[in-house]
Amino acid sequence: MTDSGIGGEDASAGWIAVAGLGPGDDALVTPEVTAALAEATDVVGYIPYVARVKPRPGLVLHASDNRVELDRAALALELAAQGHRVVVVSSGDPGVFAMASALFEALEAGRPAWRELDIRVLPGITAMLAAAARAGAPLGHDFCAINLSDNLKPWSVIEKRIRLAAEADFAMAFYNPRSRARPQGFVRVLEVLRQTCGEDRPILFARSVSTEEESLQIVSLGQSHAEMADMRTMVIVGSSTTRVIERAGRAILYTPRSLPKDAA
Amino acid sequence: MTDSGIGGEDASAGWIAVAGLGPGDDALVTPEVTAALAEATDVVGYIPYVARVKPRPGLVLHASDNRVELDRAALALELAAQGHRVVVVSSGDPGVFAMASALFEALEAGRPAWRELDIRVLPGITAMLAAAARAGAPLGHDFCAINLSDNLKPWSVIEKRIRLAAEADFAMAFYNPRSRARPQGFVRVLEVLRQTCGEDRPILFARSVSTEEESLQIVSLGQSHAEMADMRTMVIVGSSTTRVIERAGRAILYTPRSLPKDAA
Repeated sequence: MTDSGIGGEDASAGWIAVAGLGPGDDALVTPEVTAALAEATDVVGYIPYVARVKPRPGLVLHASDNRVELDRAALALELAAQGHRVVVVSSGDPGVFAMASALFEALEAGRPAWRELDIRVLPGITAMLAAAARAGAPLGHDFCAINLSDNLKPWSVIEKRIRLAAEADFAMAFYNPRSRARPQGFVRVLEVLRQTCGEDRPILFARSVSTEEESLQIVSLGQSHAEMADMRTMVIVGSSTTRVIERAGRAILYTPRSLPKDAA
Repeated sequence: MTDSGIGGEDASAGWIAVAGLGPGDDALVTPEVTAALAEATDVVGYIPYVARVKPRPGLVLHASDNRVELDRAALALELAAQGHRVVVVSSGDPGVFAMASALFEALEAGRPAWRELDIRVLPGITAMLAAAARAGAPLGHDFCAINLSDNLKPWSVIEKRIRLAAEADFAMAFYNPRSRARPQGFVRVLEVLRQTCGEDRPILFARSVSTEEESLQIVSLGQSHAEMADMRTMVIVGSSTTRVIERAGRAILYTPRSLPKDAA
């Protein structure tokens, strides 16, 4: 933590913006987020996300490692309480499995004065929307988003949610499919999906969308295997109505807006 | 449909970008979408969304009424096949209950030559992310998105999905809560939510987020009534762990990242 000449500022001028940087390409960062970064005195976040912010004089970059989200949130709140203009950066959208919830957890547990702060959440293009756009429109009908990181919930909850989502016939977007701590988790996810959705259901593996390392694979659940995903992969499984349009070059994966007339 | 001097162009240069304009504020339009609009010869879309595009010489605006999505998609495909550079505009994200699926439905049913076209989907800030950001972070844990417009699916499917989503303990984002055709639909949605989630569960009504008419209400399901929503309202219901932080000014609605330790 550093004050770097900002300590004398009027504390009432401090604020926090929890901002989404989108999936990687600067062309997917909203002007709202760009403007907040231009006004900031401090940027707080996970190392690779802070690395996406261009350094400039007067801007202090506070990069921290993964799994210290609450410490990071407390730092941001304390800096803002001292009058700093703080942008907390997340990849994608800050409200989807990212820093906004961590910030409010720290706020609720922390000093009463923090509740007086000016706090804004600035939305961003979350990974499932970027991945869906690259593949076509697999989320064009009802869908759900499930975080497969089992640091934050037990496997039993993940399995129950997948089974209920399959019964509801949602398309499903899976964040953090492969956890270093339990590499077998995603193997079991694919087993449950094959049981509930069948071998023919299409599944998208979209890695590092909008970056130079982007790669997309659309296969059937029967053809899928866990090694198709890593920490940078977004996985989307279609609903029963999701279709693949084959064509020269890349296939298109999309879910029609309507159910068939005989659906019930 | 008009050619306005573009008919002589090389057909191979035509393309379609299905672009999301975000919830309303220009500061939430990505630079990628702005760049596509700057290169376009034609903009195709629903009247109020086309009205958000600034006219300029050489840009033809094709505005059409609601419920003609497939005709609009066919127009865009045909213009691109003739060599035009076409942006199909949606509000929010084009892949979430919007024009991308309609375009691919038309593509699949249409002329084989259309499959050769250069088609991109450009993601945008969808309404649930914008609404969630304004309220805090209600979608910070697993969630689902359900379109309540019953033009496209029967009520029985909607009810089944809500019951399963409640059993899965997803936060739920509802698009198009009130349909002119069946105003009673949302009354029944609230009844099912009270039965399955209880009277105390928080619900957010976020109207016209990021525009001058923006208004937000956070109440309990017991306090909620159908008139709190209209055609411009995004509705988000929390999961069992969603919390409200009361404070001077606006309350914060958020869902913690983790489940309680005893969850199963």
